[in-house]
Amino acid sequence: MMKHVNYSEIDLEHPQEPGVKNIKVRWLISKKDGAQNFAMRLFEIKPGGNSPLHQHDWEHEVFILEGGGFVKDQTTEQPLQPGDVLFIKPMEWHQIINRGSTTLKFLCLIPYQK
Amino acid sequence: MMKHVNYSEIDLEHPQEPGVKNIKVRWLISKKDGAQNFAMRLFEIKPGGNSPLHQHDWEHEVFILEGGGFVKDQTTEQPLQPGDVLFIKPMEWHQIINRGSTTLKFLCLIPYQK
Repeated sequence: MMKHVNYSEIDLEHPQEPGVKNIKVRWLISKKDGAQNFAMRLFEIKPGGNSPLHQHDWEHEVFILEGGGFVKDQTTEQPLQPGDVLFIKPMEWHQIINRGSTTLKFLCLIPYQK
Repeated sequence: MMKHVNYSEIDLEHPQEPGVKNIKVRWLISKKDGAQNFAMRLFEIKPGGNSPLHQHDWEHEVFILEGGGFVKDQTTEQPLQPGDVLFIKPMEWHQIINRGSTTLKFLCLIPYQK
C-alpha cells in the first residue's frame, strides 16, 4: 500500500528561517518519501504570527484549510478564508499573517530543483 | 497581487477518463496560471462514485478535505478521513471510492513533464 497517514501523525517542526513568528510546519510529503518533483507542507500560524515578507525564485501553491488571515505583497493586503487558493509565482513578494484568535492552517507546496 | 481565488469560484469540470464515476474536478492552479512544475486540482466524488483502479507513470500528492471514502490498491483497502495524506508513487495502483452519504473532496497534485 502507498504512503497513507493523517497529517496529525507527522512531526511538527519549527521553521528556522529569519522573520518567521509563531509558525510550525509539517512536511507531509517530501524527498524522504521519494517525492522527486514537489513537496507538500502543512503550516500552522498561531494568532499574532506571520511569515516573513519575502521573495524567492521558486513558486508556492497554497490552499487555506482552517482559520483566517491576510496575504500581503509589497503594496496590498487581502483577507484569507478556508478554501482560498494562492499561486505565488517565482520572485513575487508575499507574506501571510494571522491577526485572528484561532490557528491558521494551510498547505504550501514547493517544487524540487532538478 | 498574486492569483488569489476561492476554490468555489473555479469551474467544475467533468473528467473524461474511462472508469470515472460521479466525479467532478476543478483545476485550481495549472499551466494556464503559469505553473510550470506541478498542478493543483480539487476533486469531488459524489456518493456512489469512484475513480478508476489504475496506474500511470506520474505521482499523486493527495490531501483529503471533506467527507470520507476508501483508497484501494490491487490487494488492500483503507478508509479515508479529512486530514489524510496519500503519496502515490509512479506506477502504484490506486482507486478512490465514496461509499458514504456526503461528497468526498480532496486535493490531488500532479507534476508537469519537463
